[in-house]
Amino acid sequence: MNLIKLLQERRDLIDKALNRILPKESAKPGKLHKAMRYSVFSGGKRIRPVLVIESCLCCGGAVNDAIDAACAIELVHTFSLIHDDLPGMDDDNYRRGKLACHRKFDEATAILAGDALLTLAFEVLARGRAPGAEIKLIRELAASIGSLGIAGGQYVDIEYTGRKKDAKILNYINEHKTGMLIKASLKMGALASGAASGRVKALETFGRYTGEAFQIVDDILDGGDSVKVFGKKDALNKARLLTSKANAALDIFKDKADELKTISDYLIKRRF
Amino acid sequence: MNLIKLLQERRDLIDKALNRILPKESAKPGKLHKAMRYSVFSGGKRIRPVLVIESCLCCGGAVNDAIDAACAIELVHTFSLIHDDLPGMDDDNYRRGKLACHRKFDEATAILAGDALLTLAFEVLARGRAPGAEIKLIRELAASIGSLGIAGGQYVDIEYTGRKKDAKILNYINEHKTGMLIKASLKMGALASGAASGRVKALETFGRYTGEAFQIVDDILDGGDSVKVFGKKDALNKARLLTSKANAALDIFKDKADELKTISDYLIKRRF
Repeated sequence: MNLIKLLQERRDLIDKALNRILPKESAKPGKLHKAMRYSVFSGGKRIRPVLVIESCLCCGGAVNDAIDAACAIELVHTFSLIHDDLPGMDDDNYRRGKLACHRKFDEATAILAGDALLTLAFEVLARGRAPGAEIKLIRELAASIGSLGIAGGQYVDIEYTGRKKDAKILNYINEHKTGMLIKASLKMGALASGAASGRVKALETFGRYTGEAFQIVDDILDGGDSVKVFGKKDALNKARLLTSKANAALDIFKDKADELKTISDYLIKRRF
Repeated sequence: MNLIKLLQERRDLIDKALNRILPKESAKPGKLHKAMRYSVFSGGKRIRPVLVIESCLCCGGAVNDAIDAACAIELVHTFSLIHDDLPGMDDDNYRRGKLACHRKFDEATAILAGDALLTLAFEVLARGRAPGAEIKLIRELAASIGSLGIAGGQYVDIEYTGRKKDAKILNYINEHKTGMLIKASLKMGALASGAASGRVKALETFGRYTGEAFQIVDDILDGGDSVKVFGKKDALNKARLLTSKANAALDIFKDKADELKTISDYLIKRRF
């Protein structure tokens, strides 16, 4: 199947599910729900939830097995962007060409919208559509976003604002801020399918390398830290090598992994 | 048993468990873990986790069945205080006579410490010490703290800052900001014990009334909204009536509920 068409189909499905999951603006407090919806539906590419679904399919699961986990990952991604943009954090006024949540609404609303989206992610996973896998999914998500995951990565990133980062620090930040949620996306897709541990492990490995490559390409596109530390050419070569390693980890799935490999190739060729 | 001694014993147990659960300062990023620990160990009375434990015991469970849920509730309580105190929210410099997290450290650290504590609460519940009850516990906690729970209550509270609140708005804020987490404490203790639904329901009812009474007494002690809306005398009478209703809901437990009744009586007599 054509990749762009596949991604579009998945995105529509994910957006419909997110729309069902998020409280309506008619539910009290309406403005808080409006802010949550504003940030969730503000043009995200839905790469992470697509990875959750493809990972589940690659293991022989169905789209429906993965949809809650896919939404949970996107809710967490949105929460982390809202909090990262706050004046006390990175102080960004814009996100994806639109006003950041705290600028469109206000700071208190943005803090609470983030808190509520984070909470909703766990609520969705506990809803009972993946019995048996639920607790494993919740454990994986929590481990990826706490102080030893995303929050830790964001902390060290802010700690080093305006200071020179060496390769070790940069790797720590990239792994925690970006890599762990991408790795979790792959692992959770596999867990939602009920896959055996060898397969879960393979997808985790794919996720680890893909996440690292993804961050490097992001940095190349917006002049970020990887370019400063490694230089543009070496950074791109590194991303290519990581993608080969990622795809090699999926050999055990044979042609079932074709979509995932196409996506990881696409992620280093993208121009946005 | 003497109530003060009982509370002290429970508190010691809870503090030890929290100390085990929280990442050490030696784990990276150390300063983030320091901030999380600073706020968790800053003199909280541990009323909510004590209620979790007593509710579990009242249903015939053991302290060990309830300790993870008790810690999760206290982690969530601490997260909500840290975020409430932020400059973009209530802008409080002090909490329990000590510097608020964002003043002791900085704003970014406080936001991330709160996010990480919230996440840790779910991680603790998913650790697998209450098999069977885990998913129910996670559902209950998530429902109490999202946009239809604590975050919603805090949102409306900020929305009405400096504006006159009528009884309806005040009830909404009190129920969501304070009541729901106290109700969740009682319900989660019962769920952790594996109690039948009638018993869970009774403890939920006790929690709802006790939570309402607790907030009114808080307002009486610090001149809060309940006093402004109802007057001090009527507010105190209301708190007493709510406590009677709370205790009446526990009649089915006979003398097994003595500790909980003593605690609810104590909560309206307290002077701090």
